[in-house]
Amino acid sequence: MIVTVTLNPALDITHTVASLVPHTSHRVAEVGIQAGGKGVNVARVLHTLRLPTVAVAFRGGLTGAAIQADLDRHGIAHRLIDTAGESRRTFTIVDVGSGDATVLNEAGPAVTSDEWHALRGEVHRLLADASVLVLSGSLPPQLPDAAYAELTVAAARAGVPVILDAAGPALRAGVAAGPDVVKPNAAELADVTGLPDPLAAAEALHAAGARAVVASLGPDGLLAVTPDGTFRAGPPASLAGNPTGAGDSVVAAIAAGIHTGTSWPHRLSEAVALSAATVRAPRAGHFDADTYHRLARGRVGSLAPTTDTS
Amino acid sequence: MIVTVTLNPALDITHTVASLVPHTSHRVAEVGIQAGGKGVNVARVLHTLRLPTVAVAFRGGLTGAAIQADLDRHGIAHRLIDTAGESRRTFTIVDVGSGDATVLNEAGPAVTSDEWHALRGEVHRLLADASVLVLSGSLPPQLPDAAYAELTVAAARAGVPVILDAAGPALRAGVAAGPDVVKPNAAELADVTGLPDPLAAAEALHAAGARAVVASLGPDGLLAVTPDGTFRAGPPASLAGNPTGAGDSVVAAIAAGIHTGTSWPHRLSEAVALSAATVRAPRAGHFDADTYHRLARGRVGSLAPTTDTS
Repeated sequence: MIVTVTLNPALDITHTVASLVPHTSHRVAEVGIQAGGKGVNVARVLHTLRLPTVAVAFRGGLTGAAIQADLDRHGIAHRLIDTAGESRRTFTIVDVGSGDATVLNEAGPAVTSDEWHALRGEVHRLLADASVLVLSGSLPPQLPDAAYAELTVAAARAGVPVILDAAGPALRAGVAAGPDVVKPNAAELADVTGLPDPLAAAEALHAAGARAVVASLGPDGLLAVTPDGTFRAGPPASLAGNPTGAGDSVVAAIAAGIHTGTSWPHRLSEAVALSAATVRAPRAGHFDADTYHRLARGRVGSLAPTTDTS
Repeated sequence: MIVTVTLNPALDITHTVASLVPHTSHRVAEVGIQAGGKGVNVARVLHTLRLPTVAVAFRGGLTGAAIQADLDRHGIAHRLIDTAGESRRTFTIVDVGSGDATVLNEAGPAVTSDEWHALRGEVHRLLADASVLVLSGSLPPQLPDAAYAELTVAAARAGVPVILDAAGPALRAGVAAGPDVVKPNAAELADVTGLPDPLAAAEALHAAGARAVVASLGPDGLLAVTPDGTFRAGPPASLAGNPTGAGDSVVAAIAAGIHTGTSWPHRLSEAVALSAATVRAPRAGHFDADTYHRLARGRVGSLAPTTDTS
């Protein structure tokens, strides 16, 4: 069972309009609602791939209830911990013509130490049956930077591999706790290391404690520093679409690969196929099945080992 | 007791951002949530003025529950009728620097004939104790254009004065049923009559069945064709601020005047003061108390009778 943790889940609301014109009124042509937050997106992809998964998250107020209702509607297993604050929303406005997206992210509620204690307890219980622990997304206000590091240490004690997808201080503290995989994007990688070169930065995170570093570089594909070697992987051609959630699909593919015990080259080619298929789908946590199967079949074409740094 | 009816209520969500830049991501500095829709805004203003009011509205799903939670939090009495569909949201993005607002309006759920029957029954029951019936805002999809006309006829039978604030076909059908007051804005007035001149258009609506027509002309103030004469009224100087909800405050002031039995000149000067005070407040349904009391004290200064058309 793959356990995903989302400390700052969201109700993702998508409004499709003819064209967003600031300081005017718009009629919304279409409304989309789904449970979101990075770990929830990962759980949705894994659930679609028919892998056993459970989403752990905080749930606050009626917005939290709407998050739960969406998970229930799609049959995604969950363990939700109540918070006194109201869960946050993200709001995406999509122009119907261009497909361009404008995004507004609420910060989310602060979490008390009792609530954080309750969530840690739930994760500790689930670790007994877990194959992988996925820690994804931003921390709620007032939670210590070491929150992910604490969960990483608990997973290591239980012998459960950890994938960490975070940024800034939470990523820095998490790396020090020795996760199996971290998955920064280009900006997060440069920010946390101060190194503009992705390969040098990934090697620095590897040296700082992450057993594998998989950097998602947008159109430049993936750069992975792993115990099996260093690899670059990308789709055969660039794909137009909405990149939201592509990084979450990279995490889902790696979690699936650890769960089923595949090699790093296999995981990375799956990650490329699944993230490209996500770019071709309109929303985070969803992917285009045709694109996925087409790219997954031709899996070795785009994968190139570089130097071995292990 | 003033009964307000809102057939398409909304959860109004306001995001304050540094500056809205299309096709980029934004951190939301401040989130505001309140129950909305025109009739709900009118009830909120009346409640603040300590007048007895009850808000009748449809309530759908968790968004409807959030609308109710806000009414409960503020002690605004309500009778909510359940709908199978989810209540709509409106999204307003306010640039913190300029105060300029970008608005996205969802259409709202369709209402079944059983649900509409239940709401009419609730209004019929409330008419026994009502002093004024306020019918405000757009109709939900699939409700007949004559929905407000039906309620207007029922109120007339019960001897309860009706104020109608609607547009297009709902306004046209409603006027034919003989409401005591209609309150179009400049665009609605021109649209429903085909007459570009506000005075000619207001007189046409009066002739078509509305006993009084109060047109809200934005910075040009109010133009009223009433049984007591025709008046123009405006604040002594133009006021900067957010005009959202100013029209609802005009309706609230007129409802309050009918409830307490004041003259048309008094009602109109109150309407000017209350709508100007609403422009000075950041959200619909709220008003700046200082501005209101200052303008209401100097009430005759801005009021000018023109020709008597009664």
